[in-house]
Amino acid sequence: MPAPKKNGLQTVWFQSPPVIISTATIVGGKEGQGPLGQTFDKVLEDNYYGEKSWEKAEQRMLEEAMQMAIERAGLQPQNVDFMLGGDLLNQIISASFTARNLGIPYLGLYGACATMYEGLALGAMLIDGGFADKVLVGVSSHFATAERQFRYPTEQGVQRPLYASWTVTGAAAAILAREGNGPVVTHATIGRAIDFGQGDPQNMGAVMAPAAADTIARHLADTQRSPDYYDLIVTGDLGTYGRELAETLLRQKGYEVGGRLYDCGVMIYSPEQDPHAGGSGCACSGVVTCGYLIKQLKAGCIKRFLGVATGALFSQCSFQQGETIPAIAHAVVVEGR
Amino acid sequence: MPAPKKNGLQTVWFQSPPVIISTATIVGGKEGQGPLGQTFDKVLEDNYYGEKSWEKAEQRMLEEAMQMAIERAGLQPQNVDFMLGGDLLNQIISASFTARNLGIPYLGLYGACATMYEGLALGAMLIDGGFADKVLVGVSSHFATAERQFRYPTEQGVQRPLYASWTVTGAAAAILAREGNGPVVTHATIGRAIDFGQGDPQNMGAVMAPAAADTIARHLADTQRSPDYYDLIVTGDLGTYGRELAETLLRQKGYEVGGRLYDCGVMIYSPEQDPHAGGSGCACSGVVTCGYLIKQLKAGCIKRFLGVATGALFSQCSFQQGETIPAIAHAVVVEGR
Repeated sequence: MPAPKKNGLQTVWFQSPPVIISTATIVGGKEGQGPLGQTFDKVLEDNYYGEKSWEKAEQRMLEEAMQMAIERAGLQPQNVDFMLGGDLLNQIISASFTARNLGIPYLGLYGACATMYEGLALGAMLIDGGFADKVLVGVSSHFATAERQFRYPTEQGVQRPLYASWTVTGAAAAILAREGNGPVVTHATIGRAIDFGQGDPQNMGAVMAPAAADTIARHLADTQRSPDYYDLIVTGDLGTYGRELAETLLRQKGYEVGGRLYDCGVMIYSPEQDPHAGGSGCACSGVVTCGYLIKQLKAGCIKRFLGVATGALFSQCSFQQGETIPAIAHAVVVEGR
Repeated sequence: MPAPKKNGLQTVWFQSPPVIISTATIVGGKEGQGPLGQTFDKVLEDNYYGEKSWEKAEQRMLEEAMQMAIERAGLQPQNVDFMLGGDLLNQIISASFTARNLGIPYLGLYGACATMYEGLALGAMLIDGGFADKVLVGVSSHFATAERQFRYPTEQGVQRPLYASWTVTGAAAAILAREGNGPVVTHATIGRAIDFGQGDPQNMGAVMAPAAADTIARHLADTQRSPDYYDLIVTGDLGTYGRELAETLLRQKGYEVGGRLYDCGVMIYSPEQDPHAGGSGCACSGVVTCGYLIKQLKAGCIKRFLGVATGALFSQCSFQQGETIPAIAHAVVVEGR
């Protein structure tokens, strides 16, 4: 039995791989009409979700997804040891207000659009380390709350460049457990913040591709695996152009991943939906992982995948003060069982 | 040897308690002139710290504190397995830009003003769980960046009520290690988000005292210890009125903590400095813990303390949309050795 972490490596592995015993996903109408629409548990008819603000709608989605994951695992909130959650809103209010309503001991995370995988990685470490039996992980994002916070007032209807992505409206949640039925998390690779000097908050693909390539290459080197060990290598929200750039960067590092490199942001919308570069946001990798990918594993269509969520680490303030945009990517290996 | 966590408890304990092998603190001029001024490693003469913005100054403080902690431990950044960091700024840009410059695998946290203790708790779990040998934990806050983000433009000079706190300008960092010399982290109690319906973002003491009392009572019940087991029980930034309220709430729960309940926010300024209710911000519990408290342990003046950092989980947006303010408190036991 190997030690869980060898000195100097970025990848940890789990001696008793934690089990994803339940997942839940809620998405907006646009996501429900996309190619993966059938794999989500609930589709909103109205992006306000009956609330007075988009922010309240986002929080409600996250809370419902988390409750659904808890119920599907046959649990009550008081049976869950920790809630790990985050979102894109300032001071992660969607997650914090959900934590208030659920009453589970709460660890707030901020990994930008990589937060779901930061949570899965940390949750698996808490369980395999012996500190928890059940961990709830969840994230949310909402097109309208993100657009007005990071870019322009939503009502202004600014024309978006073709390399811009579309923030996914949705929430995803999963219960990780020490024992149970479901796919298992076998490895996690925690990313470094990588900055190639890109500064355009519309062009997230170019910002995040170097971080994705860095984490994937590090994971493959640490585990001494080749890309074809995985049925799929799935990045979070690089979009069309970012995915191509990541493939090129990986080739420069000696890894040919072409045919098996997918991106949740590309998968979630069809070109006819005019999402430009693709989907983004915490919920993008969240709902595609907890919806489509887990279903693919359970159905036996794939045996294992390397999920690599990507996040851009900037704020409106850092952008206005002339900073470039660092990015991060966290990877998790999920295997069917 | 007990299991690290018993089912249903909020407290985890460490089989091989991780060691705080180094700490570093940087503070602003006001904090340097306070009663604990001599316990900090560096005092800024200028709150811009030679930078063009307060935000850049805050990020520089955090980076310097983290580098100082790494050097004092006799390490290089590449010897550190994970960096756990956060701050109060939208999308925690101080921590994320520091992570970019240090290049250490990075897990971004948001626990409001409780972030230092969220980091110490998680860092200790990652080490005791076998996933890391060295973890860097750090936080920052800055009066001017917090004031303009959460309340009013700093230049406006709004009159502050007497129950308002003063955000500490500073940064704190610590290296946790599997082995080495220094105080050890023996237990951690992760808090729940508690909301008593308070909605005034100036009155943080009233917001956070219920969360502090909840976590302290839970910790004492989980460990079956009485308050006098600890030389000090030190909350993060409740301030004068919040500390009194926490004492009252704990009495209602059956715990008399009076003489040993201190608050970092009360300790860091003298009444002559006119801080109103006291200090607050991520750096408040951060610098008092990594400065004064650790020095007290090392000097043998105290044997152990229960640190209980407190955080208010709100944003400008949630306040404007009429939400009340939930709060959280995370506790860590540190013992001299």
